[in-house]
Amino acid sequence: MQQVAIGIDLGGTQVRAALVDEQGRILTRLAEPTDALAGPDRVLAQICGLADRLLAASKPASVVGVGVSAPGPLDTVAGVATDIPTLPGFVDFPLKAELQKRFAFPVDLENDAIAAAIGEWQFGIGKGLDNLVYVTVSTGIGGGVISDGRVVRGRKGMAAHVGHMSVVPNGELCPCGNRGCFEAYGSGPAFARRAQMRAVESRETTIGSGGGTIDSRSVFAAARNGDRLANQLVDEEAEVLGRGFTSLIHIFSPDIIVMGGGLSHEFERLQPGIQAYISQWAMPAFKDVKVMLAALDQNSGLVGAAALAFLAGKVAPIDHL
Amino acid sequence: MQQVAIGIDLGGTQVRAALVDEQGRILTRLAEPTDALAGPDRVLAQICGLADRLLAASKPASVVGVGVSAPGPLDTVAGVATDIPTLPGFVDFPLKAELQKRFAFPVDLENDAIAAAIGEWQFGIGKGLDNLVYVTVSTGIGGGVISDGRVVRGRKGMAAHVGHMSVVPNGELCPCGNRGCFEAYGSGPAFARRAQMRAVESRETTIGSGGGTIDSRSVFAAARNGDRLANQLVDEEAEVLGRGFTSLIHIFSPDIIVMGGGLSHEFERLQPGIQAYISQWAMPAFKDVKVMLAALDQNSGLVGAAALAFLAGKVAPIDHL
Repeated sequence: MQQVAIGIDLGGTQVRAALVDEQGRILTRLAEPTDALAGPDRVLAQICGLADRLLAASKPASVVGVGVSAPGPLDTVAGVATDIPTLPGFVDFPLKAELQKRFAFPVDLENDAIAAAIGEWQFGIGKGLDNLVYVTVSTGIGGGVISDGRVVRGRKGMAAHVGHMSVVPNGELCPCGNRGCFEAYGSGPAFARRAQMRAVESRETTIGSGGGTIDSRSVFAAARNGDRLANQLVDEEAEVLGRGFTSLIHIFSPDIIVMGGGLSHEFERLQPGIQAYISQWAMPAFKDVKVMLAALDQNSGLVGAAALAFLAGKVAPIDHL
Repeated sequence: MQQVAIGIDLGGTQVRAALVDEQGRILTRLAEPTDALAGPDRVLAQICGLADRLLAASKPASVVGVGVSAPGPLDTVAGVATDIPTLPGFVDFPLKAELQKRFAFPVDLENDAIAAAIGEWQFGIGKGLDNLVYVTVSTGIGGGVISDGRVVRGRKGMAAHVGHMSVVPNGELCPCGNRGCFEAYGSGPAFARRAQMRAVESRETTIGSGGGTIDSRSVFAAARNGDRLANQLVDEEAEVLGRGFTSLIHIFSPDIIVMGGGLSHEFERLQPGIQAYISQWAMPAFKDVKVMLAALDQNSGLVGAAALAFLAGKVAPIDHL
């Protein structure tokens, strides 16, 4: 019988679920708005409902398990959601145990960006590689790391909060409360904020000229139309990302950096600037490391969650001690 | 028969060698100035000579292998020294193969800061922990990481060049050629340079007042004597280190940060400032991570190299995929 896994991507706005085969192909996919305000019991019922519908719609198959990706901070060693900002009530909540009560299959839990890294490693652009750093550049900046053919998890499974490395002493305020984090400079909102401030100062730009909102999308659109300030802003964003990625290259020595998240939809425009920074400023042994676009786009985490279920059953000999 | 390993710490100024037992105890220890200018053949002969003398002086024992720690950049996957700045002639040099030719025991090779991390993990302050980041703060800043009970090596075994994460955009020039690296702000020479500049501007300080050289040691001495500027400078250094360590805590989620290297001799003075930064600015789940002093001091790398030889023979079941 065909082996499949259920992948769940629990987000603050959407719960998504998919039946995924061993090749990482999505066989069926469902989504609904997260009933976040109704609290944990209702959200868990949503997850179970989606899984039931997936299985009811599928051909007979052997389900190896359920992998759940959720926003952090998540102590995946204890299986506990410490305090998910976008999901009220998930405070010190034993998410893994509560899920396991509701499923007949083994349940695995992973921080969302680590799940996305696993997805890209097992079934996406990083397939076959032993070392990659996945960075999602979106409302925030998150990450997941594969090193020496293994997921880097760390204490409480909370490794790879790469958005919160300091890049400017006492710099811009970050949503985490600190100042000067990578996220406070490289995220979509940080990029848009720079654009808003600079557009006001400029007389020549078309950014925001029609009175429309200035967001990442409109700045990239203006850049495509030849707006000089917009192109400057985009080049600066590429430099911010290039500098952050170069730090991560020195820290993890990955085979590649994988870029996902909302801003990766503008990868083609950003990539040359990012790569130029790496080539110029990385140390000699690291200059050839490439930044690549996530292959699974918004499904990296969903497929990665399913991949967790496949991986959980496997045991391999150790080659790195 | 007693099991022992030979640890070699190859440095630009000294070659050190030790016979180490399974508990990490140094049974015999030898050192001599590195005959660096004479080139690789001579340096390899030094290493063999030291090993021979160690074995001749020891009681009968079973030698499990030779572990060699060397300054990077070292491609430990290929066993090749790419270009060691302090050791002329070690350019694309097949160090592991050349060593293996000369020894009857299995030879292992490791980047020096990773070897030191292994030493502290196996036999030092990190014994029994699964996650630690070792940072040596000295002439430069280097690192080694243990995550989920394994050494993080990455592509070419070159992970953990933590001194080259960017902390200030277009900041101070770093020996690596880039600007604004952690090393360019946190290393001993960077600290001394700040002291030199600020001492000139100050009328009240005793730093450099006798016309003596201003180095890390003299600034810490002045601080102990109550000099205000010196204490300010030390507090700033603690903040620089605290900020860098906090980034590493977010990136790796270690159980502890282990500080080694020359500046760790002033750990008692620096620790409160470093810890205060972490407590204040790390994200909630990470605020309790402690910075601790390396237990093996200058022998972390030497003992770690020997530990490599013990580890190389072991195979354990996988618990993290």
